[in-house]
Order: sequence, then C-alpha cells, then structure tokens
Amino acid sequence: MTGNLYGVSLGPGDPDLMTRRAWSLLQSDAYWTYPVKKKNGTSYALQIALQTGLTEPENSTALIFPMTHDKEKLAKYWLHAAQTVIEKLQQGHNVIFLVEGDASTFSTFQHLAKTVKALDETVIVETIPGVTSFNAAAARAEMPLADTDDTVAIIPAGYGLEMIDSLLNDFDTLILLKVKPILDDIIELLQNKNLLSNSCFIEKAGSPEERIVHDIASLHGEKVNYLSLIMIANNHHRQRGEIIRGCRKKTTTS
Amino acid sequence: MTGNLYGVSLGPGDPDLMTRRAWSLLQSDAYWTYPVKKKNGTSYALQIALQTGLTEPENSTALIFPMTHDKEKLAKYWLHAAQTVIEKLQQGHNVIFLVEGDASTFSTFQHLAKTVKALDETVIVETIPGVTSFNAAAARAEMPLADTDDTVAIIPAGYGLEMIDSLLNDFDTLILLKVKPILDDIIELLQNKNLLSNSCFIEKAGSPEERIVHDIASLHGEKVNYLSLIMIANNHHRQRGEIIRGCRKKTTTS
Repeated sequence: MTGNLYGVSLGPGDPDLMTRRAWSLLQSDAYWTYPVKKKNGTSYALQIALQTGLTEPENSTALIFPMTHDKEKLAKYWLHAAQTVIEKLQQGHNVIFLVEGDASTFSTFQHLAKTVKALDETVIVETIPGVTSFNAAAARAEMPLADTDDTVAIIPAGYGLEMIDSLLNDFDTLILLKVKPILDDIIELLQNKNLLSNSCFIEKAGSPEERIVHDIASLHGEKVNYLSLIMIANNHHRQRGEIIRGCRKKTTTS
Repeated sequence: MTGNLYGVSLGPGDPDLMTRRAWSLLQSDAYWTYPVKKKNGTSYALQIALQTGLTEPENSTALIFPMTHDKEKLAKYWLHAAQTVIEKLQQGHNVIFLVEGDASTFSTFQHLAKTVKALDETVIVETIPGVTSFNAAAARAEMPLADTDDTVAIIPAGYGLEMIDSLLNDFDTLILLKVKPILDDIIELLQNKNLLSNSCFIEKAGSPEERIVHDIASLHGEKVNYLSLIMIANNHHRQRGEIIRGCRKKTTTS
C-alpha cells in the first residue's frame, strides 16, 4: 500500500494557530518532511511544529528548496525532493510536508506535489489549508482584511510604486508583501495620498517575534525584516461602482 | 473584573479546520455568542462549533445581524448586540463570538468589536484568525492561491465583467466571490479569454456540502448556491513587470 502525501499548513508562527487537522497529522505516525533553504539550514515550519512541545521524529527529513529563480536548478531540487518523498510513500508511510502559513499561498508545497504527481500519478495528495500571515496581520492590527463588498489585493511590493498607486483606485484593502526594498517610497506615497492612518506595518505576523507599527512614518530610513508587510485598509481613494445583486440578470446569449 | 471579548474564527466549515486556539476557547468557560440573520434563525458558525461534538452551553446567546444595507437599521442591531455582550463582560465573563471563516474577512465581528469599544474603551478585544473559504477552496481545488511573485485579487463578482476583465491584466490569481448573479456572463468571459481550464467553481468550500466543479462551462444556465466562488489561477493574461529585489534602492528624498 502506497502512503498519502499531506501538505500540512501550520499557520503564521504561533503553534496555537495551526488547525486541529494539522495538529492531528503531526501526532500521527506519518513521516515528517520540511523545507530548508540549504543543507543543514533551519526550517521555520519545523520550528512551529516543535513549539507545540512535540519532538522531531528521528527519521524525519529536510528537503532542500534553494532561494533561486534559476528554473533549471529549482527543477533539479524539486525532483530530488519528490524522489525522497516517493521512496517513503512506496514503503507504505504517509508523508507530511510541513508548511508555514498556508500551503497554497507562496509555498513550495505546490511544486513538490506537482513533481510527485508527475513521477507517480497514483499518489493521493491532500492539502490542509492554514491561516495566512496576512489574515494573522489583520487580526493583530485590528484592521479589517475585508468589510462588506470590499475588494482586496495582495501583491509583492517589489512591482513598484506605480502599480501600488494604480491599485488604490480599485481596492479597499491592499496587502503589500516584502516591503523592505522600497519601504521609504511606500511611506512617501501613503503620506501623499493621506493614507498613513489607514496603514499598518507588520513584521513576522503571528509569530513570537511579531512587531506591529501603526505609525509607519516612524519607520522611514529603517532597515526592516524581510518577512514584513504593509496593510492598507478602508482606502478612501477606492472608486466603488454599483454592485449586481440578487438573481442572475437575463442575458440574450445562449 | 471585566471579561475579554474574543472573535473566534472557526474556519470554512470542517470543524477540523478550526485552529487549536479556537478549539481551546470553545472548551473554556467563556460565554458563547454567535450571529443569526433573524430571530430564531440558524447560525452557520454555531453549526461548525457543534460539529466538534461539543454541546451548546445553556446560557449562550444568538445576536441578530440582519441582511440589510440600511446603515441606520444595522447600527441599531450592532448597538443591541454590543450591549448584550458588555452586560456579560461586566459580570466578569469572557465572551466568545463565533465566526465562520476568518473574523477579519467579510465578518460582522469587526462591527461588533468596534461598537463594544465605542461603548467601553477599556474592554480588551482579541481576534483569533482563521482559515478563509478561499484558502480552503485553493487547497481543495489543488490550485495555487499564489506562486512565487504572484499577485492575488479577491472581489465580489457583482462589480461586473468590465472590472473582472480589467483585473486579468494585473493579477495572476482572481477570486470572484458570490458569482451567482452573473455566473453565465463570467463563464462566457473566461471562455473568450481562453481561461476555462485555469478556472474552478467551488460551492461551500471546506464544508460537508462542498461542491467542486473544474468544468465550469457545464454550469451555464444553472442556479447555483449563494456561497459559491470562482477561482482563476495561473492567468496567462497577466502582464508581469520587473520586480524590485534585494536591498532598498537609494532615494534622494529625506
């Protein structure tokens, strides 16, 4: 009997923010795997799991997913990781892959699962969804991610000021991820648009090292952590049109 | 001693998708409150809590949040709900307010919390984040909500086809909520843009009544459930620009 592969989302960092399902899979006899960026590197996902008080099983395995945009190099590592997982599955073990945040949201699990399926399409893969860093950020900052009929955009801030500025016409809430490289520019934009009081900076949301800064102008010139985001909510520049309600409107198309 | 108010996110419907923190608060001696749309109405959030096997505490209270856009009427109900909560808090009880999905995302909890704080600013409010329906949808449909450097937009579909079409230039992933009123039009748009195979329809994601339809063209003409969404991922119409990486770029502004 081949085992199943589970992508186990562990939430943003606080072990109490993992789901009951994730907790139950951690306590099962499944084989643990988790991502590291390099050989003998640390794994944030593993750290979250261990913060529950559980001990890492002796035969667990780190899988290497390097920080690179070289697709050929990545594919080689995905293949190696998938082969490691398949070997365990074929020995009859269920395999869990630990994921920080949510396994569908900016996670390597998608690539691992796809490569495993490409090697053996009979493998059953299940993704256990989890709490994302931006949901945790909204809760901790006491800001709505979305109110009635609101629109929400989540983008890496690196696409630049022009795009951010343009999205402020269409979205009530903007989540800007990885703000570090252009933090000062973002602060100036929000100042010019009179949006500073609608904004909040959150570093490592939902983790023990969490930092929340409501007065984001105070961060001007500071070198912040890579895992930081800015949330803009109740954006008054959003041009809200009419919304279609109720039953489907009649159309003449077939 | 005044109690604390907790917004307890219970996730999309499967009781195993609530967090360990939510589960622990449900089992505490806190006073339960939950939203209903009308007097003696059913509460989806309560149903999720009871699916764990817990029994509803005898002295729990339904709070009425009617389905209306009449702001004056809503404010009256929010005030009444907040007064009910504050009475319990002042008796020294902690109060939990049960929320389906995530308490920061299209939830009445934000309004309840704000009104409670307006009546008594000393009340401590804590929001426990949860798994959203769209995170559950991505996991169940086995589609990425976001891959590396992806952009994501979440909008009520009712803003119309023109907005949806325009967002396809900027976003890798689109989540269209409440698609019922314009489902046929959306299907036709996605057909015209050659995006049907990148799309998935999900009704009541993560609940026991969940329905996932990958062949969304087959839904043409069907009257679907109100709690349904369409997810479009890996959108090939997205015009992706350069992304700013690494350290902050030098600016001449102070």
